[in-house]
Amino acid sequence: MTRLPEGRVLTDPDVIDSYARDRTFLEPGKALGVVLAASREDVVTTLRWASENRVPVVPRGAGTGLAGGATAGDGAVVLSLARMTAIRELSPADEFAVVEPGVITADLDRAAREHGLMYAPDPSSYEISTIGGNLATNAGGLRCVKYGVTRDSVLGLEVVLADGRVLETGRRTVKGVTGYDLTGLFVGSEGTLGVITAATVRLRRAPQAPPATFAAEFGSLRDAAAAVSAIIAAGCQPSLMELLDRATLKAIDDWRNIGLEDTTSAMLIGQSDVADGQAVAERMQELCEANGASFVAVSSTPEETEDLIGIRRMAYQAKERLGACLVEDVCVPRSVLPDMISAVEAAAARHEVQICTVAHAGDGNLHPVFIFERGLAEPPPNVWAAADEVFREALKLGGTLTGEHGVGLLKKRWLALESGPVSEELQHGIKAVFDPLGILNPGKAI
Amino acid sequence: MTRLPEGRVLTDPDVIDSYARDRTFLEPGKALGVVLAASREDVVTTLRWASENRVPVVPRGAGTGLAGGATAGDGAVVLSLARMTAIRELSPADEFAVVEPGVITADLDRAAREHGLMYAPDPSSYEISTIGGNLATNAGGLRCVKYGVTRDSVLGLEVVLADGRVLETGRRTVKGVTGYDLTGLFVGSEGTLGVITAATVRLRRAPQAPPATFAAEFGSLRDAAAAVSAIIAAGCQPSLMELLDRATLKAIDDWRNIGLEDTTSAMLIGQSDVADGQAVAERMQELCEANGASFVAVSSTPEETEDLIGIRRMAYQAKERLGACLVEDVCVPRSVLPDMISAVEAAAARHEVQICTVAHAGDGNLHPVFIFERGLAEPPPNVWAAADEVFREALKLGGTLTGEHGVGLLKKRWLALESGPVSEELQHGIKAVFDPLGILNPGKAI
Repeated sequence: MTRLPEGRVLTDPDVIDSYARDRTFLEPGKALGVVLAASREDVVTTLRWASENRVPVVPRGAGTGLAGGATAGDGAVVLSLARMTAIRELSPADEFAVVEPGVITADLDRAAREHGLMYAPDPSSYEISTIGGNLATNAGGLRCVKYGVTRDSVLGLEVVLADGRVLETGRRTVKGVTGYDLTGLFVGSEGTLGVITAATVRLRRAPQAPPATFAAEFGSLRDAAAAVSAIIAAGCQPSLMELLDRATLKAIDDWRNIGLEDTTSAMLIGQSDVADGQAVAERMQELCEANGASFVAVSSTPEETEDLIGIRRMAYQAKERLGACLVEDVCVPRSVLPDMISAVEAAAARHEVQICTVAHAGDGNLHPVFIFERGLAEPPPNVWAAADEVFREALKLGGTLTGEHGVGLLKKRWLALESGPVSEELQHGIKAVFDPLGILNPGKAI
Repeated sequence: MTRLPEGRVLTDPDVIDSYARDRTFLEPGKALGVVLAASREDVVTTLRWASENRVPVVPRGAGTGLAGGATAGDGAVVLSLARMTAIRELSPADEFAVVEPGVITADLDRAAREHGLMYAPDPSSYEISTIGGNLATNAGGLRCVKYGVTRDSVLGLEVVLADGRVLETGRRTVKGVTGYDLTGLFVGSEGTLGVITAATVRLRRAPQAPPATFAAEFGSLRDAAAAVSAIIAAGCQPSLMELLDRATLKAIDDWRNIGLEDTTSAMLIGQSDVADGQAVAERMQELCEANGASFVAVSSTPEETEDLIGIRRMAYQAKERLGACLVEDVCVPRSVLPDMISAVEAAAARHEVQICTVAHAGDGNLHPVFIFERGLAEPPPNVWAAADEVFREALKLGGTLTGEHGVGLLKKRWLALESGPVSEELQHGIKAVFDPLGILNPGKAI
C-alpha cells in the first residue's frame, strides 16, 4: 500500500470503522485500512499488494447497501471507489456512456437528460448510491417495471481482477455474442469476482413529456394487488407502480400528516411516461376504481406528481423513525403478489413483529421492513423467525430471496434453499477461476 | 447409448451426415451417431454415457446456424433437441412461458399471441429455428432494436451438465440477484457449458394494432444511414429498422422484379408498433425525405405491410441464388454505421468479391454476405481476405465480430483480436468448471 500516492490510505480506526459499514445493522470487524482509489491504477496497485500479502479486500461505493455486501471483516482492506467519479464519455448518437464506479446514479441520469436521454435504473437510493454499487448488486428501482434492472443497461465493463490484471468485457454495441457473457457474470456478483473500474452503460431516450401519475387508496391490500394485475393485463405498461401497505402509510402519516383515512389499507401509485400518458393514467385510474379503490388522484403536472411520488419517497425514512430496520427484498411472480402479502401479514401476526411493506408491485418485488428495538446488536429471534417464514414462503411461491438488494452477508443463511448444491458448486468453481486466493469480498454473495 | 429408449439413436452414415451440418458451407467430420432426445431423461442418459466414454457431444436444434456452431467433428455424437417441443407452461398473468428447446421460435410467439402476448426475439430464421438454438447463440432479430436480444427475454434455464447432473438457473420472477448470473452465462455459450432442456422465457404484451410500416429509397447508403441516425435521435423508437444495399436489392429484383430504379442505392424499411404508430411512421418518412430519400411508401394495412417487409424477407434466399454464401454478422456503434458500410464496400472492391449487405440498422448490426462459387469446399482466399478486412475494421470502429450469429467455428480465428488473452484465459477457466472433460461441443465459441 506504500506504493499508492499520498493521501490515498486512511488508517485512523474510527474513520476505518465508518467505511466498514453499509446501511444494515451489521457490525464490521477490525479492518486494516481504507484505500480511497482515485484511478484504475490505484485499484491495480491495491489488488496486487493484497494478492501478494493475501489480504482480503472489500470494495465499496457509497455504502448504501442493504444486505451487508460492503461490511468489512477483521484484517480486510476497504477499497472505496467513491472518488472515481468521471463520466469518461457520453455519446448521444450511440446512446451510451462510459462511467467510473463512483458516479452517483442520479448524476449520470442528469448528465444524460442534457442530451434528451436518461439512465433508466433508479434504485430508491439513486441520489446517494453509486453506479459501482448498483452494478455490484444488479440494482433495480422504481422505473425497472418498464426499463429493466441495472444488468439490462450494461454493455461492457473494465474490471481489475484479484491479481491486478485488467479485463475488458462486453462491448460498445447494443448486440454481441463473442465469447461468454462475462459482463453479466460481474453484474450482481457483489465485488467477489473483480473490482469494476468503468462501465459502458446504455442510455435511453427520455420521455418527451413529464409522466402522468395516479395514486389510489384501497380498503384492502388484496384489492390493490388485484388492480395491479388488471393494469398489467390491460397492457397499460406503467413506467412505475408502487404499492404501500397500511403500516407504511401510518408511519408516513405520523411523520408528515398525509391525511390517512382509517379505512385505507393500501395505496397504489403508478405512472405512465408515454406520449398519451394522461389517457393511460386515466385508464389505470378506472381499473383501480373497478377493483374497489375508494379515492384516486390523477396528475400530469410536475408539482402534483412530486407530491404523489413524494409519499413513496418518504417510506424508508418514515420507517426508520419507528426503530431499527431489517429491510427485506423478496420477489415473486406478479400473479401471487396477494399471496405473498398475506404471508407477510401472517408472519407479522404469528411472531408479533411490526412489518411495513412497500412493493415494486409491477415486478412482484416486495420490501417488507421488519422493525425492531434500536440499539440491539442484531434483530431479536422473533424477527429472524418472521423473516425466515417470509423467505420460505417467497421460494414456495416460485420467487426469490432478493430482487435487487443482493445477498451480501444478510441472506447467506437462506442461500442454499434457493440455489441448491449443483448451482453452489458451480458458483464456487467460477469464484475460484476469478479469485483463486479468495481475497475479494470473502464470505459474501455465494 | 443402449440405455436410451428404442428409436432414439440414428446410425445410418448418410442420415448422420445430414444432422452434422448447419447452414454454413462447413464440412462435418465423421460423427458416431445421432441421438433424437425426446425428454430431459434422454439428455441425461446421453451425457452420462458420453462422460463415461469421453465422447464429444454436439447439441443441435434445427441446424439453421450460420457460424458452424452445430457442425459435428469426427467421433462426436450429435444430440438433437428438435423433438423436445413442449410448451410446458404459459402464464398470461405472469407473462412467461416454460418451453423446451425444440420449440420453433415462431410457434412460441403464436402461442403467446393467443393471450395478447408475444415472444419478442425474432431471428430471420424464426419460422424454422428453435428456441434452443436461439439460446445457444443469443439470437437477435428484426424486433430487437426495440425489444432486445434473446438474453433479454430469458428468466431461467433447466440445463443438463456434461456429467448428466441437472441444474436449474435463474427464476420465474422478472428480477432477482441470488448468486451469479448462470442464466446469462449459458445464453450465447453455443452448447459448450451444458445442454439446455427448458427455458423460462419472458413474454411481452403484444402491440394492440398492426405496426405501421415505411419503406424509403435512397441514392446513397450514407444518406440512408444518416436517416437512421436522425430517426433514432428524434426518439421515434422504431420496432424494426432494416437497411438493404443495392447489391441485395438487385438480387431480389432479378429474382422477383420489385421494380428497382437505377438510381436506388439503398432501401430503409422501418416500423412502429405503438398506439399512434401511423403518426410515428409518417415522422420517420419525413426524416427519410429530409435525408434525401427519393421515394417513401407508408402503410398501415397488414397486406401492404406484408409487401414491404416481404422485400426484406426475400433477401437471404435471393442471395443464395447468386452462389455460395459466407454470411457475416459484425455489429458497430450505430453512429459509425456509414463508416462500416464504406469499409465493406472498400473490401469488396479491393478483393473483387461480391458482397451484399443487409443491416439491422437500428442496432448497427450488419450482415455482409460474401458470394463465392458454388461447390467449393470453402471460400476462396480473396473472400477470406475481404472478410478479414471487414472484421478488423468492425473492431477498429469499436464493434464486435458477431452481433447475433455466434462464433461457432467460423469466427474462431479472429476471436483473440476481440477478446484478448485475459478474457480468453477466464473463459477457458469457466469452461473447465462446467465441462472438465471437454466433451461439450469442443472447439466452438471460445
